Amino acid sequence: MGRNVAIAGAGMSDFGMFSDRDSKNLFVDAFEEMRGSVDKGFDANAIDALYVGNFTNDLFVKQSHWGAVLADALGLIPKPATRTEGACASSALAFREAVFAIASGFYDVVLVGGFEDMSKRTTEEVTEGLALASSPYEGAAGFTFPGVFGAMATAYFERYGATREHLMDVTIKSHDNARFNPKAQHQRSIRQIMESRRKRAQAKGGPVPAWETEKDFLADAQANPPIAWPMHLFDCSPISDGAACMLLVAEELATSFTDTPIHVRGIGQGSGRALHAADELTSFEATRAAAQEAYQMAGVDAGDIQFAEVHDCFSIAEIMHTEDLGFFAAGTGHKAAAEGLTRRDGSKPINTSGGLKCKGHPVGATGVAQMIEVWHQLRQTAGERQIPNRNLQIGATQSIGGTGGTCAVTILERR
Amino acid sequence: MGRNVAIAGAGMSDFGMFSDRDSKNLFVDAFEEMRGSVDKGFDANAIDALYVGNFTNDLFVKQSHWGAVLADALGLIPKPATRTEGACASSALAFREAVFAIASGFYDVVLVGGFEDMSKRTTEEVTEGLALASSPYEGAAGFTFPGVFGAMATAYFERYGATREHLMDVTIKSHDNARFNPKAQHQRSIRQIMESRRKRAQAKGGPVPAWETEKDFLADAQANPPIAWPMHLFDCSPISDGAACMLLVAEELATSFTDTPIHVRGIGQGSGRALHAADELTSFEATRAAAQEAYQMAGVDAGDIQFAEVHDCFSIAEIMHTEDLGFFAAGTGHKAAAEGLTRRDGSKPINTSGGLKCKGHPVGATGVAQMIEVWHQLRQTAGERQIPNRNLQIGATQSIGGTGGTCAVTILERR
Repeated sequence: MGRNVAIAGAGMSDFGMFSDRDSKNLFVDAFEEMRGSVDKGFDANAIDALYVGNFTNDLFVKQSHWGAVLADALGLIPKPATRTEGACASSALAFREAVFAIASGFYDVVLVGGFEDMSKRTTEEVTEGLALASSPYEGAAGFTFPGVFGAMATAYFERYGATREHLMDVTIKSHDNARFNPKAQHQRSIRQIMESRRKRAQAKGGPVPAWETEKDFLADAQANPPIAWPMHLFDCSPISDGAACMLLVAEELATSFTDTPIHVRGIGQGSGRALHAADELTSFEATRAAAQEAYQMAGVDAGDIQFAEVHDCFSIAEIMHTEDLGFFAAGTGHKAAAEGLTRRDGSKPINTSGGLKCKGHPVGATGVAQMIEVWHQLRQTAGERQIPNRNLQIGATQSIGGTGGTCAVTILERR
Repeated sequence: MGRNVAIAGAGMSDFGMFSDRDSKNLFVDAFEEMRGSVDKGFDANAIDALYVGNFTNDLFVKQSHWGAVLADALGLIPKPATRTEGACASSALAFREAVFAIASGFYDVVLVGGFEDMSKRTTEEVTEGLALASSPYEGAAGFTFPGVFGAMATAYFERYGATREHLMDVTIKSHDNARFNPKAQHQRSIRQIMESRRKRAQAKGGPVPAWETEKDFLADAQANPPIAWPMHLFDCSPISDGAACMLLVAEELATSFTDTPIHVRGIGQGSGRALHAADELTSFEATRAAAQEAYQMAGVDAGDIQFAEVHDCFSIAEIMHTEDLGFFAAGTGHKAAAEGLTRRDGSKPINTSGGLKCKGHPVGATGVAQMIEVWHQLRQTAGERQIPNRNLQIGATQSIGGTGGTCAVTILERR
């Protein structure tokens, strides 16, 4: 498979809704942090090419052709710059192309990233823009993404006996992890949010909600209103601005950049049918295909993956992905979440970053941002959210676009 | 540079404005023609991956995530499918990624194509959509693409003493070539158009225009109205729908697909600054960088390229590209066109397909469609527009996005 590839550095902007930051600012933030992370330093002139993933800034900020725009902003002219688009998996696809570009021998040093600027539009405009990634039939049937994932959740509940309580397990865990992620859009636990709301109610002198547990709070339709049943507000990832990037290098050059390279051990990508034509509603064919390709390349199986960032655009998605990746048997992902297996101290930590739900989901940035979390965990630089007491060697990411039309799986390794 | 890559087959839809055809239909047309062109036949299951270039169907037909949509339409699920976007160079970038994917050893057989569905929107909407590929500064200054290229033409005229007559030489040649291209959107020579208009005027009983030469016709502002001086209507490529695709295979497998493989000998890509920051207005830095990279990989120089398809989105662009590619010295491209050197029977035939001007310019399809013309010429299957009496071995394509923000150059070879 050509030459091997390693990650020499990584950086990301803050994720959130920023009225004073645009895609260029955010990408430059990510780039500067990446530069600082390359411990032996490097000359930006060494960068041979740029790959960027972006979903739909064409619509959100009325600018396309972002490869050229960012190459100019980063001082990379006349180096080649290519944008990939695969809906919410856009930068995971960019990462894959960057790997191919090095593996083929064409380039030695490639900058890869992703970004999205979503907050300058109304929620309605963003929802409509994102819906362009679903199939023409889904759109014509009136589905937006919360609706589509709501339908999949309903099918999952019916088939496997899960309930909204299982979705809450996912949400509570994501918020618990995000407390320790200084880049995350939402950095409070559900309990913190609950106490804050309670205090606010007390201060107003009105009735004080009787929530005792986090699940009481999430079950309260005032506090956690339905969006598209059973997807409530706290089941949905937010509208976010942000950027993330990585420096990829040919493996044989890695130690001239850093003492702690992280190696790309496996990459896989698959495509899936839209929901109206899918074989089933509780699993993504594209993820199964991508995982198989990545595991085969890496020479590992699901049991070898110690932890992962998966594409929890909605809480139900996290459960389904952990099954499609083979971490848990079909129909048991919700039980694994309930048992705490996916917590930071569980046997298979999932979304230690807080996931898309809490870290934020600037759609074009997400794929690379997921990899940055795995990179941090493998380097033991994840701070207070570091997976405890583990010799971490292999982690994975999984990103989907649309309703599973595209999926990319990446396996990273520390040696 | 990894494994070598060859073209095993190619096909394109008709180019034009089709109220009854959408991107899927057009891409399937291209795919079916491509299948027929693979003379030893092949099983579509052999396709390992799909790359597609598209500029902005997000806006034009309110659908993004086209990799997945087309993978499904072509029966390729669950194979990976990736969309690239580099404005009007989008499918030239897809081609390059497909080459990397094979060169790296990841895949053996890759389908690559491009498409655009533009005609369902008003001219104003299309012009505005395309303008998203120019720099934020150009857009803010009120420039659309005819305006930008008009400004560059003005600078070229001033610097090198060219006139509108030189632009007419390009236009007349493009129309002469397109007469023999059954896929072209405009298949009549300027003389044929002129005679037809004259007959129409006679039939109406009104005054009959006194045009004698084609240049008389093109100089008549009634017949050829100004769009953004000196760009008149016949200097501008049209709004088009269309699709094009190719089957790329690892070179060592090529003869199991076809007796006449065409080899990818060089690929190059570059980025350029927007006009407000460009070093000059009469040359594209991105083209010079891309050409240098492609020539170096191929081990050739400009003199070795026997013919080329270049990105004549506007007539002035063709002149500038033939200089940036090194075919003619800076400031002499207009004279070369006037002397007939770029005609089919000239020493350096350019745009034998009729170019974007006459073949049509469905922006996302253009890069691969240009390569298809070179593929035909090298295989001696270009019919009546075949370059006469030449043993053709090496041809090139050049595609730009925006105002030169992106450029890709590809060198193809018959052995």
